[in-house]
Amino acid sequence: MSLQIELGERSYPILIGSGLLDDAASWDGLPAAAQALIVTNTTVGPLYAARLQQSLVGRFGRMHLVQLPDGEQYKNWDSLNHVFDTLLQQACDRKTLLFALGGGVVGDLTGFAAACYMRGVPFVQVPTTLLAQVDSSVGGKTAINHPLGKNMIGAFYQPLRVVCDLYTLRTLPAREISAGLAEVIKYGPIYDLDFLTWIDSHLEALRQLDPAALAYAVRRSCEIKAAVVGQDERETGLRAILNFGHTFGHAIEAGLGYGQWLHGEAVGCGMVLAARLSQRLGLLSADRVQHLADLIARAGLPVRAPRLEPDPAANAARYLELMRVDKKADAGQIRFVLVDDAGAAHLRPVDDALVVEVLEAGCA
Amino acid sequence: MSLQIELGERSYPILIGSGLLDDAASWDGLPAAAQALIVTNTTVGPLYAARLQQSLVGRFGRMHLVQLPDGEQYKNWDSLNHVFDTLLQQACDRKTLLFALGGGVVGDLTGFAAACYMRGVPFVQVPTTLLAQVDSSVGGKTAINHPLGKNMIGAFYQPLRVVCDLYTLRTLPAREISAGLAEVIKYGPIYDLDFLTWIDSHLEALRQLDPAALAYAVRRSCEIKAAVVGQDERETGLRAILNFGHTFGHAIEAGLGYGQWLHGEAVGCGMVLAARLSQRLGLLSADRVQHLADLIARAGLPVRAPRLEPDPAANAARYLELMRVDKKADAGQIRFVLVDDAGAAHLRPVDDALVVEVLEAGCA
Repeated sequence: MSLQIELGERSYPILIGSGLLDDAASWDGLPAAAQALIVTNTTVGPLYAARLQQSLVGRFGRMHLVQLPDGEQYKNWDSLNHVFDTLLQQACDRKTLLFALGGGVVGDLTGFAAACYMRGVPFVQVPTTLLAQVDSSVGGKTAINHPLGKNMIGAFYQPLRVVCDLYTLRTLPAREISAGLAEVIKYGPIYDLDFLTWIDSHLEALRQLDPAALAYAVRRSCEIKAAVVGQDERETGLRAILNFGHTFGHAIEAGLGYGQWLHGEAVGCGMVLAARLSQRLGLLSADRVQHLADLIARAGLPVRAPRLEPDPAANAARYLELMRVDKKADAGQIRFVLVDDAGAAHLRPVDDALVVEVLEAGCA
Repeated sequence: MSLQIELGERSYPILIGSGLLDDAASWDGLPAAAQALIVTNTTVGPLYAARLQQSLVGRFGRMHLVQLPDGEQYKNWDSLNHVFDTLLQQACDRKTLLFALGGGVVGDLTGFAAACYMRGVPFVQVPTTLLAQVDSSVGGKTAINHPLGKNMIGAFYQPLRVVCDLYTLRTLPAREISAGLAEVIKYGPIYDLDFLTWIDSHLEALRQLDPAALAYAVRRSCEIKAAVVGQDERETGLRAILNFGHTFGHAIEAGLGYGQWLHGEAVGCGMVLAARLSQRLGLLSADRVQHLADLIARAGLPVRAPRLEPDPAANAARYLELMRVDKKADAGQIRFVLVDDAGAAHLRPVDDALVVEVLEAGCA
């Protein structure tokens, strides 16, 4: 099936299906170019790069491959520059097509490379993780990390096409499936409580990679994200609701060091904290908080936040410091995505004291 | 006076005048922000940073200053990261306003920093060199250099406003004035032969910084650039004509090492070579070529290209290699901006053999 992301002249289709990677028709209609570059990592590359190259045979004069080390800690300038070095060494011109073959790290980094190389070359997303298929391949957010903050250096840049091959999820470790489910679950409380109910009743099927369940979860997640992004491409307002759980989550990732917890794990735990914050503000009932926390636990995700400092006050201070550089912050005040019982999300500043209370109750 | 650059929702004004830097009214209407960052270099900063800060007093809660080392060789990732470090250390949010106070290097780098920081923050150009006022502050091209090519990593990103204070040109070394005149002269052969005639008769006044002559040269240059960019913001076609002299020029800069020749010097010399190439192809008369070369020499610019290798064949090969990574190249074929007797420019591929001949005749 195909889902169209409507963004005016930057509109593009998302193809979702089983076996798309090996199907030459998946690439029909892409622009001609003398050269193409596949960017992947050392885990995904050995599994799928040769198959993608085979599937693309005949479309480009020359195809190149860059295999980056695997992990969030490599979503940095060194990896980005490795892509630029290859492009320039091969004299790749402005029409060169980039393929991002891998998870969110490969997609975000390759998208940013495409946005910057010669001020912009076209690129195609081929997400091979559940998280990337339901989240990072939609919306045009590209970035690398900075030691002082996640995704701080980046661009809004849309792919020409996203090709989600559900078969690639079969080689994904269970931990990565759980991490992807965090972003699937997210779409429930912020936008669609019916979808949350559906996830609740299909969680085991999803964890067991049931093709029909996966196809629906990926499609509905992309639909919701597309609907939100379509109204606010550059995150001036509504789009921020997609960051539910991410303010706490980014602090966990940065505080522990990138690569310790998976992004989805940090977001899962972050949603529990954000739900508790919503409860303290009278937006969300205790029942709903408990239900969400249970669902996140059943998905195989952590629900207790890591302690970044042994001393409780120092721990809370460290979290606050890390969250204050969040991109949603405004004049030093942290703004949280909160959810309510009606299934709507709200972006608002919260008093530090309340955040400290939630952290104290929620840290392991 | 003020000139409006029409680019839909990304339209912005260019203010041109004497004393604008010290005039608080120059900044009226800019968005409010808790913080602002002035990016400059160690040459311009001591002259004008305090005055800009004074002129901006009361508009931002906190103002920061980054002074980069001066020179094209510092238009790199290290300098860019220095800006990001400062922004993150100061917890600057997404509304933070960046000011680029300096020449083309500061403007290009600061614009790219603004394009990437948190996926885009607003910025204002305050160009203090003639080259930046007539060229790099208009058009939204931002970039840093890569060891394998100039301006290879960048973005199209428009400023909120450009403020050209002609008084700042009074502290500019004569060599920098000459370099700026290269880009002024450029607008003649590609677009407006009447302007070329005007430059010819006002060259001495311009070199002596006559305010009326400067004001007209800056205004007319910006008008022409705006007219071209307005028709082709992302350089898919017409806009490439602004690169007259730049294909050879970029090779000179990269071949000698950035910072040896000024950008404008390389462009001046590059225009002579491009004019000779135009002559070989029957587009431009020998008289016109000679007239342009004389004008460039009178502007204080080099007209003989540097030899990158002692051996003629090796020298030509090195030039060709450097030009093949030019962003206008298509499938490995270098495309040159050529000009004709009618004052129009053409982008087209040229046989290597002809380029070699021109290089042989044109190198010192």
